[in-house]
Amino acid sequence: MIRTRGEGEKQGRVSIIGLGPGAQEWRTLACQKTLAEADDIIGYGFYLDQIGGVGAHQTLHYSDNGEELARAKLALDLAAQKRHVVLVSSGDPGVFAMAAAFFEILEELRPHAPIDIVVEPGITAALSAAARFGAPLGGDFAVLSLSDNLKPWNLIEKRLRLLAQADMALALYNPVSKARPHQIERTEKPPSTLIGLGTDIARKGEKTQLTTLEKLNISVITSRTVILVGTNMSRHFSHQGRDWFYTPRSYTC
Amino acid sequence: MIRTRGEGEKQGRVSIIGLGPGAQEWRTLACQKTLAEADDIIGYGFYLDQIGGVGAHQTLHYSDNGEELARAKLALDLAAQKRHVVLVSSGDPGVFAMAAAFFEILEELRPHAPIDIVVEPGITAALSAAARFGAPLGGDFAVLSLSDNLKPWNLIEKRLRLLAQADMALALYNPVSKARPHQIERTEKPPSTLIGLGTDIARKGEKTQLTTLEKLNISVITSRTVILVGTNMSRHFSHQGRDWFYTPRSYTC
Repeated sequence: MIRTRGEGEKQGRVSIIGLGPGAQEWRTLACQKTLAEADDIIGYGFYLDQIGGVGAHQTLHYSDNGEELARAKLALDLAAQKRHVVLVSSGDPGVFAMAAAFFEILEELRPHAPIDIVVEPGITAALSAAARFGAPLGGDFAVLSLSDNLKPWNLIEKRLRLLAQADMALALYNPVSKARPHQIERTEKPPSTLIGLGTDIARKGEKTQLTTLEKLNISVITSRTVILVGTNMSRHFSHQGRDWFYTPRSYTC
Repeated sequence: MIRTRGEGEKQGRVSIIGLGPGAQEWRTLACQKTLAEADDIIGYGFYLDQIGGVGAHQTLHYSDNGEELARAKLALDLAAQKRHVVLVSSGDPGVFAMAAAFFEILEELRPHAPIDIVVEPGITAALSAAARFGAPLGGDFAVLSLSDNLKPWNLIEKRLRLLAQADMALALYNPVSKARPHQIERTEKPPSTLIGLGTDIARKGEKTQLTTLEKLNISVITSRTVILVGTNMSRHFSHQGRDWFYTPRSYTC
């Protein structure tokens, strides 16, 4: 995809990619190819460590969590030197990850930068956790972050209330904070609502737990847990000792 | 992942996988590996044709669109013969696809079937289309099917109305039907709301178009279009002649 305009005129390039949930087998082929072709790879250290080996010509740029804007600026600086820069997120780069931060910085600081830009999708945590439980997101669903770092808490509560009225399945990211450990209990769903907790899916120490809102023990939720919340139609059953959780395709009122 | 219990006792297996949007490069490594290991591959013909070559020992089972329950039953029948059966969806199997249909049939007909079951996630159309536009789903978002085949139209209207009040970004699947060509206009969003139309993403004839709700020309929407709808915060800008559409991570009221 690099537009080569004669060797002297090749542009730099920023590829914004998602590694998926963790295991290499849930990366896309394009993700693997892009990593292999990169000059520079920028990301939060926890994710860079998942990449595996890099070539001798490649530079890894470790950054702290939360420094998305600094990462985007570094990517633009390196691409201005005609390098191929890869910005790494876990999951999908467009879901609570680097892509939005990159475009914010591009529009604000370098709207005319002579670089190529490619976004490569990945398996976001909602889908990898859902796969472990069966098909909890089999009908209409919503994906929300419960973190109030970037939006007011009253907006989160409003969205949860409206989504409960809509009886849509939910995938909740960033479920815990020291300040608000009981966020999940604000979903305004019936007590019998099915809840799937997926922690470190496709990583070392993977844990899944199927429960209900009334039986939920919030102490098992970590910052790397995705919470899947069913609808009034959602079902669960046991098959060969394993619990499955799915939301039928049909909705009957 | 096959639990081999001695050669005579090996169970059959059903793998429910997603091919992603179309291009092989957006499949996961696990998807490729599962296809290579299958005895039987079942799916809608349009998707089976995307797989590429299969081995001499492998059988492709073509099915018509809409026959999800028949496909699930066939998978259970073949797995009962200790075969490794792969149920193919496009995108992610848990998003308006085969996984929910399979678990419905499993629970109803064969809850004690001695088979192994694996769900392999894939890149769903919301994420592949979003990658082409930049990061339109960069904040909280919802994924809805506009088809009223499996749920009443008044539920769809109710959900669209509540999601407009929540000012969440939307990814709308199955956007057209002969009966209701104007569904998208019922989103109850402001006229200036950004709309990204992604048709045949990562397939031959890929088309993307960025517009607004008031300027939307519904005649360009097909059954293979995903409609991405922005929030009041969403932005667009042009970089090197290409339009980008993103939703910032922050939401300020």
